[in-house]
Amino acid sequence: MEPDIRRSSGIVPEMLREYGAIVREELQHYLPQREPRRFLYDLVADYPQRGGKMMRSSLCISTARAFGASLEEALGSAIAIELMHNALLVHDDIEDESEERRGRPTLHRLHGVPLAINAGDLLSLMSLRPLLDNIDFLGPELALRILEETDLMAQETAEGQAMELGWRQENTTSLQTSDYLEMVLKKTCWLASIYPIRIGALIGTRGQVDLDAFFHFGFFLGASFQIQDDLLNLERDDGRYGKECDGDLWEGKRTLMLIHLLKHSSPEERERLCALLSCKREERTHRQIRWMHKLMITRGSIQHAERIRDRLRDQALIEYDRLFEHLEDSPDKRFLQEIVPWVIHRDVA
Amino acid sequence: MEPDIRRSSGIVPEMLREYGAIVREELQHYLPQREPRRFLYDLVADYPQRGGKMMRSSLCISTARAFGASLEEALGSAIAIELMHNALLVHDDIEDESEERRGRPTLHRLHGVPLAINAGDLLSLMSLRPLLDNIDFLGPELALRILEETDLMAQETAEGQAMELGWRQENTTSLQTSDYLEMVLKKTCWLASIYPIRIGALIGTRGQVDLDAFFHFGFFLGASFQIQDDLLNLERDDGRYGKECDGDLWEGKRTLMLIHLLKHSSPEERERLCALLSCKREERTHRQIRWMHKLMITRGSIQHAERIRDRLRDQALIEYDRLFEHLEDSPDKRFLQEIVPWVIHRDVA
Repeated sequence: MEPDIRRSSGIVPEMLREYGAIVREELQHYLPQREPRRFLYDLVADYPQRGGKMMRSSLCISTARAFGASLEEALGSAIAIELMHNALLVHDDIEDESEERRGRPTLHRLHGVPLAINAGDLLSLMSLRPLLDNIDFLGPELALRILEETDLMAQETAEGQAMELGWRQENTTSLQTSDYLEMVLKKTCWLASIYPIRIGALIGTRGQVDLDAFFHFGFFLGASFQIQDDLLNLERDDGRYGKECDGDLWEGKRTLMLIHLLKHSSPEERERLCALLSCKREERTHRQIRWMHKLMITRGSIQHAERIRDRLRDQALIEYDRLFEHLEDSPDKRFLQEIVPWVIHRDVA
Repeated sequence: MEPDIRRSSGIVPEMLREYGAIVREELQHYLPQREPRRFLYDLVADYPQRGGKMMRSSLCISTARAFGASLEEALGSAIAIELMHNALLVHDDIEDESEERRGRPTLHRLHGVPLAINAGDLLSLMSLRPLLDNIDFLGPELALRILEETDLMAQETAEGQAMELGWRQENTTSLQTSDYLEMVLKKTCWLASIYPIRIGALIGTRGQVDLDAFFHFGFFLGASFQIQDDLLNLERDDGRYGKECDGDLWEGKRTLMLIHLLKHSSPEERERLCALLSCKREERTHRQIRWMHKLMITRGSIQHAERIRDRLRDQALIEYDRLFEHLEDSPDKRFLQEIVPWVIHRDVA
């Protein structure tokens, strides 16, 4: 019997552990050991040292290797991806007023907003360093193409983040599924999957590849990842999920579930929801959050999001065939296939 | 009679206008005209469009031209400098809780902290774009050396900002002049003068230059500029100064004047000062700020800062001779000399 490709074997966590350990180790060399430690470099090193799935960097390495590159050739870009990812987490946590990250208080809660903004700024620009070091390993032409991709990714990511923040700030309550998917494409998919896979493919093929071909796979994979992330946020905190439970509801985040709920609630419920969403975070009560959560269950909003997530997963698997099936079999190729169901069945945020 | 080199003729404002207009015009092409405007690109374009002295970009262009390059060859780097400068202003204003910038409310006061952080992030990474475009004008080798310098500048700037924010956050009251100068070297001088002059020299000499030679000139110039900036902050608001008057006192900024005052006040005054500095901004009163300001005058703290500023200016002029005097006479060369007294006699912040 054929294995069910919508299920994931153990290869994904295994390779995330393996590649993650290497990237984390090498990333240390990019964290300066100098003053000012207490006001800057301790903060810069904090999120990268808290762990994390290392999904983004592993996607880059496995794509590069599946196309024939060595791990060493992809390592600098993988480190850059993790630095940029952590930089954005620091600033996102301030923007979202998040309280926990990877099981600990967020950086700005530990050190105040000013120092956390500054540390995030440096982390972001520090991701340039390994991309410049790429020149020695990949030559100037390929290194510069990767920098070009970085520029594109940064723009898309900021656009997506602006959309989401703007909706919350203006208390937009008339969004469609397509608005959410466009926002997630930009906010999440570029850095989570499109960019890592594209630069992996650039490295693996020495620039001999049409990057546009990878766009859809990255989108389907990243979007199902984000929807699952939003769903995990609604599950009980059992210690494995590193953020506060129902954090998205406290923050008024425009998830698929919330967009669905706003469309499928009674006029009275909708009115109450809109009023609740227009409040500041600290004005909301536990009781109100529980009510919103329950309503999402009874109105089928969670099932609705699960259905869309699963459809995106199926699309990602079709794209996988088109992009990678012709490549020689390898653990990296299997990783790229099995990460598709993994993003849904993982139990870590 | 020889002209007094400690005075500035009209050439500095004239060239700032000329180069400033060109850079501002060309910078427009790097500001995307697309959605989301209201949540992102309007914010990204705001500070660059408010004006500003254009001192940093003009220093880069004039150094490049004094060494024989064309304006076009320096233009991309000049644009990158302004983008990075504006990016840091957006985040600095949040970190310092500043209320005004270039005569208008700060960006986060207009759009909220989350959207302002995000716009600053993009502005910062957008400065990469013209530096990548440098490849076409300067070739990959020189373009990459400029990117290396950018990496260095970013690190120094973040270190200086962290020092200053850390001192305020921990209410440090035992600082020395040397602490202030080290902080200003990092926070201000790298982006304001060291980096623009170094990349100008790289471009002008096609990389055939010892960059370390420019370090001292950049430091002396940038530090006298920053001290003058701190002094201007204490002068009455006559409309030409774009920030709120006494803003640094409200923010508890560790200026030379404050450091001097803490050392030269009576035990009772010192106690009152330390208590006042430990308050939050909104807990301070106009009366207290006026008292602190007056005490700075009577204790000679302002004169003390002026003396250090003037000594730094004299050192900068000595360095000027060493670095530029052998070059053929040109308006750009005169600009580099006359900008030294100008940073002190300017009446704009």
